[in-house]
This record gives sequence, structure tokens and C-alpha cells, in this order.
Amino acid sequence: MGEFELIERFFKTPAQTQAKAQLTTIALGIGDDCALIQPAPGTQIAISSDMLVEGRHFFADVDPNALGHKALAVNLSDLAAMGAEPLGFTLALALPPERARDEAWLAAFSGGLLALANAHHCPLIGGDTTAGPLNLCITVFGQLPVGQALRRDGAHAGDDIWVSGTLGDARLALGVLRGEWMLPPDVMAAARQRLERPTPRLALGVALRGMASACADVSDGLAGDLGHILKASSVGAEIEASMGAHLTAAGAFPSLAGGRFHSETLLQLALTGGDDYELVFTAPAAARRAVQSAAERATTPVTRVGRIVEQPGLRLIEANGQPTPLEARAFDHFD
Amino acid sequence: MGEFELIERFFKTPAQTQAKAQLTTIALGIGDDCALIQPAPGTQIAISSDMLVEGRHFFADVDPNALGHKALAVNLSDLAAMGAEPLGFTLALALPPERARDEAWLAAFSGGLLALANAHHCPLIGGDTTAGPLNLCITVFGQLPVGQALRRDGAHAGDDIWVSGTLGDARLALGVLRGEWMLPPDVMAAARQRLERPTPRLALGVALRGMASACADVSDGLAGDLGHILKASSVGAEIEASMGAHLTAAGAFPSLAGGRFHSETLLQLALTGGDDYELVFTAPAAARRAVQSAAERATTPVTRVGRIVEQPGLRLIEANGQPTPLEARAFDHFD
Repeated sequence: MGEFELIERFFKTPAQTQAKAQLTTIALGIGDDCALIQPAPGTQIAISSDMLVEGRHFFADVDPNALGHKALAVNLSDLAAMGAEPLGFTLALALPPERARDEAWLAAFSGGLLALANAHHCPLIGGDTTAGPLNLCITVFGQLPVGQALRRDGAHAGDDIWVSGTLGDARLALGVLRGEWMLPPDVMAAARQRLERPTPRLALGVALRGMASACADVSDGLAGDLGHILKASSVGAEIEASMGAHLTAAGAFPSLAGGRFHSETLLQLALTGGDDYELVFTAPAAARRAVQSAAERATTPVTRVGRIVEQPGLRLIEANGQPTPLEARAFDHFD
Repeated sequence: MGEFELIERFFKTPAQTQAKAQLTTIALGIGDDCALIQPAPGTQIAISSDMLVEGRHFFADVDPNALGHKALAVNLSDLAAMGAEPLGFTLALALPPERARDEAWLAAFSGGLLALANAHHCPLIGGDTTAGPLNLCITVFGQLPVGQALRRDGAHAGDDIWVSGTLGDARLALGVLRGEWMLPPDVMAAARQRLERPTPRLALGVALRGMASACADVSDGLAGDLGHILKASSVGAEIEASMGAHLTAAGAFPSLAGGRFHSETLLQLALTGGDDYELVFTAPAAARRAVQSAAERATTPVTRVGRIVEQPGLRLIEANGQPTPLEARAFDHFD
């Protein structure tokens, strides 16, 4: 199967996505040397690229439908973290010969990819296919009003720190797949869904425009990604250590109680697990009610987990009220 | 070396590129979830992605400086073919562990990449680095006035067909590296330069705005890429078979005379060799003088090689004036 036949058969954007996409903005899609985007007046284009490599970002036997979903989801998550609405994406795909011949695999992969693209009116507008070790590189384009981007450098002392959804569950599922630990089946089913089918928080990102002082998506764990905000904003942060059990979805399962996954371990998963694709953001304490109603409009749960302080560094506030630098905590090491 | 250190040390855009880049357009570069581009009013963004895989697009022992140059050049060539001016690019890079530790290799690669970026005021604005089999995915962004893109679908019967520079030389060099044939050293030195350091024809693309009726870049050989124009424009073409020796740079070397690389073989190299990154374009016969002076302004040689006709298909016009369908010609097969 040649490159053109492969694109025509498996990666053609469904008519319904074409129809709903911002066609005044996508001036020219697949089939020329370049795609053309014409942004609406007063808007900026947000751009992000992520590359997924077999054996590193996914297992060779991963469900290809889930892989297609995740490859686009992790990119859309970067748009969400900027407060941008999706416009379209390019896909560069290196396929080993046996994958290029595997029509069931290709159909499932493109099915997962295009279903998410369709759900967000985000057509495939260009790209490249080649032979090589399996590698997916997606570059995604979004649009937002000039000056309203949710950057990382706007957090101020006194701001609240919020996270969307739940954190740490993807890492919990990964540990099972790696043979590091076992989980009750109901917990694993929920956690695996979080690992394989993350939900980009696009509606929340848009709802937070003009309200969040800083925002990032959580791909490396809360500590790391909040750390990027702290560094860019030249501030520090305090997180409530008691949040652990509340930050993971797993913490709510009765079947998990009494085992190794107590509050302390769940906190560690939330802080350092990664692969969550939730948003961590800051907002003035005066905007607490506005943040809650923005989250309701976006039908996305949010949790207040701490606050921004002047003193650089990230500290955990223990039950006794004492702050402990994150590095000083004796977590189990599972990375 | 972590991802951030690697970017900071090897891929930081030189201050001179930052200064000359369209900074009103690049609103935010590396260091947030997305880069932000804010196009000038009345302009469109042209976007193209190319993925280069070790062993397929380049040899493992290729000069890394040349590799950096070529990875960006093949993408800039797509902008040239659209008539767009470069704005910036993202780089997603999968590196095997031994490459990620090889500072000489990284410095040479980023040196070649950023030298070309600098020459075209085209800063690196984002991307991704990860571990994996060596794979480079560049997405490039350009700008052009609305409605002035050089598309593939505008060729009309009676239009002249032009090509820039020379064709077939990259394939000539590849044959030597693959052990398929030998070349005199002076011819090989010139041909290898064409293979490893192609020149994106950006100035020519801009100069052809409003003049060329269709344009594409020659990456798969003249027959294939002109074929894309013919298909998109629903027309056919006739190429002068006598052009062979004049289309390659190699044809001008006296040291090549009398061997296997006669006019017929050189024609085949030009038609099917590929990896040239020249422009093939069409323009009304009445614009011949205007095309020549546009080429002079762009200091890029152009050659008129044939004409667009109504009858679909690509035919060669023999010395006796007879047209022969390309498929009917008994070329040696070297692919």
C-alpha cells in the first residue's frame, strides 16, 4: 500500500468533522505542499508537537484504537493548557512494514485518532508517512484571542493552586502492566482507562481564560509540571499532604482500602506519577467561586490543592501544619 | 543529559535569529505548553511536516551537520513551493541513548540545523525530545498574503512548465553511496552536495507569487511531482526529451562524457531520481519574460522544459517531434 492509498483509506477526515471544523480558518488541507490556516482577526495560533515512540510511550501490544486516541489526546492537552480551541493537526507516521500491511491495526488506530478529532472538530490537515520503527509525531494547532493565552509565568503569591480531574491513576495502571504491583480488578479497569484514554481538558482551558493566572498540563506528575509554573513565575508553592487520597480516582474505591496504596502512596502517585493530562492552574483566591462555576460550565471537576507563596520551592503541608520540602519526604521510590 | 538541558545546550535559537525573526508574529516560543503565532492581518499560515528516519532517509554515518541542514531544508522546500516566507519550526527528535550522550554529534547536528534556520530568520519555537530509534520530525510554519499561495491545481493547457536549478544529481550521488555505480570525483563532489545540502528555493517561491499558475517541490522526481500538478489541475504535459543533459548539474561536467551517463540516463535521473528540492511550476506563455526576471531577482536559475496540454498524462517529445507516453519509454530501472 502506497502512502497516498494509506492516507485515502485510513486517514481521510470524516465529512462531519470537515463540516464542523472552522473551515474559514483551514483554507487548504491535505493534498498540496503545505496546509493553509487563516486565523480569524484578533486571534493567535497555538502550536504543540509530541512524539510517541513504541516501547517508550506505549507497549507494542497496546490496543491500536486507544493508541490513536492517546496520540492526539496528549497534544490536545497542550492546547487545553493554553486555553486554545483546536483547529486541526498534522500526523507524521513511521510504520514498520508489518504494520503498514496490517489493515486491522491501521483501521483501529485511525478509528481511535479520528473519533477524538471528530469530537473536537479538529481535522487532519497534513503530515507525512514513511517506513521505519513505529513512531507517531502529531503537531496540533489551536486558536485563541490575542492576549488570553494561559501561560506558565503569571502565578502570584497568594494564588490558589487547582487541579482538574484525578492524578496518579495512569501510573497506578502502568505499575500493573509492568508487573510492579497488583490492583483489584475494578480499580485496574478505571486506572487503565486513565492511562490509555486520557481526556484533554479543552472546555476547562477555554473557561479559565481571563481567570487562571497560570496553567500547565500534567504530563510528568504534579510536582514536575507545577514546578514549571513556579520556575516561570519565580514563586513557590505549598500543597496539602492530606490531598493524596482525594487526588486519585483509585482512592475512592473501597476495594483499595487497607493495602499498600494508602494516602501517602496515593499522594506520591499524584505528585510524580505522570501521564495524567489534567490541568494544574493558579488563580487569585478572590476568584474561587468563579473558578468553580467555570469548572461547572466545562463539566470538569476541579480540586483546590494548595497555594502559591513567595518562597521558592515546593513544600508539603503536613497534618500538623508544618511545611516539608518535597525532596525531604521519604517516599518509596517506584520510578 | 535531560530534555531541558539538551534543548538549552544545543537547540537554543541564536540571538541573531531571534532578532531578525518576525517577532511580532512569534508571540511565544519554547518554554510553555504551546508556541504562539500571531499572523499579520491579511496573511495565511502555511504548514508542512516531514519525518526523517535513519536508514531510510539518511545513512547512520551521515555527516550530522549535513543531516541538520537537510532535515530543515526539505521542510523549507515545501514552504517555497507554496510561495510562503518562513516564520519558525518545531522539532520532535527521538534519539537513541548513544546519540543523546554524543555531544559532538549533537553539536554538529544542531549546528547544521540552526545555521540554515538563521539564514532564513526561522527560529525553533517548540517541539519534543524523547528516547527511541533516531527519528527527526520537523513541522515548519510560513506566512503568505491571503489568496497568493502557489497551489497545485491551477495549471492550464498552454502554460509553460519550468524547473529551478538542476534535477537528478542527488540520485546520482546516492547511487555511488549505495555501490550502484561510480562517478568521477569532481562530479561526485558536486552531486553529493546536492544530496546532502539541498537548497530550499524560498526566494523563487516568493518571486513567483501571482505569476506561477501551479507549483510543487521536486522531492520524488520531476515525473512524480509534476504528476501531482497534472492530477490536481486535470491536465497533461509534454516534456522535451532533449532536456536530459541540461537538467542535471552532472551533465555539464566534461569528466562525465562518454560513460553510462549519457543524455538518456540523465533524463531518467531528472524524471525519477528525486531528493532534489527544486521547484517545478507552470506559468502562462505570455509570462515568460516575467518568470525570467523573477528568477533573476531570486538569483535562482530556471529552465523551461515543456508545456501543459489538455490531454491527460505525461509524454516525452522525442528529437523527431513525436510524443511518447512516459510509461512506454524503455528506461533502465535503477530504483
